[in-house]
Amino acid sequence: MIIKSKNIYLPTRVVDGFLEIEDGKIKSIFNDFDGDYIDYGEASIIPGFIDLHVHGYGTGSFTHEGDVDSLKRMAESVLTQGVTSFLPTTGADSIERIIEWSNTVDEFLKENYDKGSEVLGIHYEGPFINKEKKGMQKEEHCLDPSIEVFNKMLGNLDISKVKLMTIAPELDGAEEMCKFCMKNNIQLSIGHSVADFQTIKKMKDYGINGVTHMYSGMTGFHHRELGVAGSALYFDDLYCEFAKQTGLTVLPEALDIAIRIKGLDRITLCSDSVGLAHVKEPFYHYIRQTEFIPDGDYITLKHDDGTVKKIDRFSMEDMDDIEIGYLTSVKNLAKNNNMSLRDIIKIGSENTAKYINVFDRKGSIEVNKDADLVVMSKDLDVLAAYVNGELRYENRNL
Amino acid sequence: MIIKSKNIYLPTRVVDGFLEIEDGKIKSIFNDFDGDYIDYGEASIIPGFIDLHVHGYGTGSFTHEGDVDSLKRMAESVLTQGVTSFLPTTGADSIERIIEWSNTVDEFLKENYDKGSEVLGIHYEGPFINKEKKGMQKEEHCLDPSIEVFNKMLGNLDISKVKLMTIAPELDGAEEMCKFCMKNNIQLSIGHSVADFQTIKKMKDYGINGVTHMYSGMTGFHHRELGVAGSALYFDDLYCEFAKQTGLTVLPEALDIAIRIKGLDRITLCSDSVGLAHVKEPFYHYIRQTEFIPDGDYITLKHDDGTVKKIDRFSMEDMDDIEIGYLTSVKNLAKNNNMSLRDIIKIGSENTAKYINVFDRKGSIEVNKDADLVVMSKDLDVLAAYVNGELRYENRNL
Repeated sequence: MIIKSKNIYLPTRVVDGFLEIEDGKIKSIFNDFDGDYIDYGEASIIPGFIDLHVHGYGTGSFTHEGDVDSLKRMAESVLTQGVTSFLPTTGADSIERIIEWSNTVDEFLKENYDKGSEVLGIHYEGPFINKEKKGMQKEEHCLDPSIEVFNKMLGNLDISKVKLMTIAPELDGAEEMCKFCMKNNIQLSIGHSVADFQTIKKMKDYGINGVTHMYSGMTGFHHRELGVAGSALYFDDLYCEFAKQTGLTVLPEALDIAIRIKGLDRITLCSDSVGLAHVKEPFYHYIRQTEFIPDGDYITLKHDDGTVKKIDRFSMEDMDDIEIGYLTSVKNLAKNNNMSLRDIIKIGSENTAKYINVFDRKGSIEVNKDADLVVMSKDLDVLAAYVNGELRYENRNL
Repeated sequence: MIIKSKNIYLPTRVVDGFLEIEDGKIKSIFNDFDGDYIDYGEASIIPGFIDLHVHGYGTGSFTHEGDVDSLKRMAESVLTQGVTSFLPTTGADSIERIIEWSNTVDEFLKENYDKGSEVLGIHYEGPFINKEKKGMQKEEHCLDPSIEVFNKMLGNLDISKVKLMTIAPELDGAEEMCKFCMKNNIQLSIGHSVADFQTIKKMKDYGINGVTHMYSGMTGFHHRELGVAGSALYFDDLYCEFAKQTGLTVLPEALDIAIRIKGLDRITLCSDSVGLAHVKEPFYHYIRQTEFIPDGDYITLKHDDGTVKKIDRFSMEDMDDIEIGYLTSVKNLAKNNNMSLRDIIKIGSENTAKYINVFDRKGSIEVNKDADLVVMSKDLDVLAAYVNGELRYENRNL
């Protein structure tokens, strides 16, 4: 298959050309071609985004539902956002629940589901996090790190499928846990943590390479104790994951400070969305000033202004009313931080791939890499998305 | 007079050459000379430091004593630190007291005192500051800005001698005050303030160009409200004044973060020392773990470890036990932040001169500028200091 665009985003330049896809890979990129091809005209072809931190989105929630079916729906939903691969992400919960999540990922991967975004493995966000910074996590399930518990958590999942763990490095047992993860090629991010500068400095030697949802769920920057946020700014080599950019929770200026001090090479973008359409209990969202009430196949939104709306949990229609997706973050970055598409590719596709060590096959448009491609309009809407060379999403409204 | 060194720090390069001084100015800089000269050999000749924020030091304290004699002693003491000009700095106090301070500066300037460091004018640190961030300032004397009060404060001092004012821009009346200062060429720094991002953004248009003792006496950086510290980091054009670098109050890493995000062009160094030898009441210093007890011409230091020391208030001997001077900050910057002498000149001499608009005559070694020169050893000790072309200090121990 050959696709064409005037703007193909290669790692170092944008070309007007043809892209040949074969056996799921990018086979070649060339300037002239005579045969049949799909012409995307002025639209850009970019490497698909990789969401390393997503609990649920749109029609499915891995965290709230947890079965294979929910993960399939979620995979299809995130693809509409330009996310061609992702890590379903857990939370701090009972070991039984975490085992279920692990087994779901295992089952999903064995099935070779050919719709939606690719699952690259799992991100364990907890349970080895600090209850002092639990945020939305369940306090009773925040545990000190333990390899024994970790091995239980895996269930049927092969450890090679664990790509990322969020951990509080100040907890007892963290050092041993980190060494174990390093040995098993599991990337480690600090999150839900009150670690001090000296602890972080030390734990960097044991595989701590970044922070989860920068600024949130961590001690802030202070000039007499840098805390997690200050240490993340200070250490050149730590990656800072920025969760969805609404313009509210983390101000564009706070992101800008991180970009200016660290450079774009150490910034990643994730959604940290949870699939709010699938909450099991009524839930009040203070930023949206809305109560989410589960209602069979529907979710009812009770806004503080008195309006009420009922939305089909299994349809993407009106889903934007529930939770912003990866693409809205992307648009906000362009608008609020003057980021170019090139910048966004760097933090959404390239750096994320590097962070979990899949840049040999993902994260950029290069010959022999997986054909995970997003066709994007000038307005940053997704027109089409290819996963491993298969056209798995087309936006028929545009 | 001709002086020679292998390392004369000109703005853009270091030269091995001769420096001719005439009528207090740098007359010329040349490579070859046949007549008599003073040879400083390998020592560096640098533009003297300018301390924009100093209440007292060594044998004199403007703030604690307040008379012309104390200012003379202070001027001589700061010169030993390589500070060839400075702004005696007030605090929040009764209007009567502030008038005394203003009159002292006026009297000192009229006298053309020819020893020690040059007084460039006054820095009013308050009284228009916020009691919520009073720090060591007197709460009852923190006032809302008022031009009427300001005009009273001046006493006999001409307004052209007011070079800098520290102000909390969130206070009622700040806007009018700032406009008034702008009109009168008084530089404005935010300090002892809880101003939010939007207030700072707005007040920048009214002459706010920097912050006083960065990180201290201000709201810290938070990702949902940048506060004074976050705004100071964010706005490229705001100068950040760093007070004495002990390595304790503001961590070297916190300074480093500011340098990396803002660049050296917007960092200034001050001592913010107070002349602790001259306190009028017993005073406990929690970092030094020492009580300072006034005792006639002496000051008694009672250390927490039980040791007691009596020091002559009017002798520089043992003065390092009381308070670190500008030069110790300089040495700490070299040691803790790997700053070069070039970097230190930038923040200590050049940027400070630019900040209070005296760079046309101070802050760098250039022909026709004032011959304010410091001869510095490789170990960053001051060997000699010239003020307006006069050799006013020589270190006879080195």
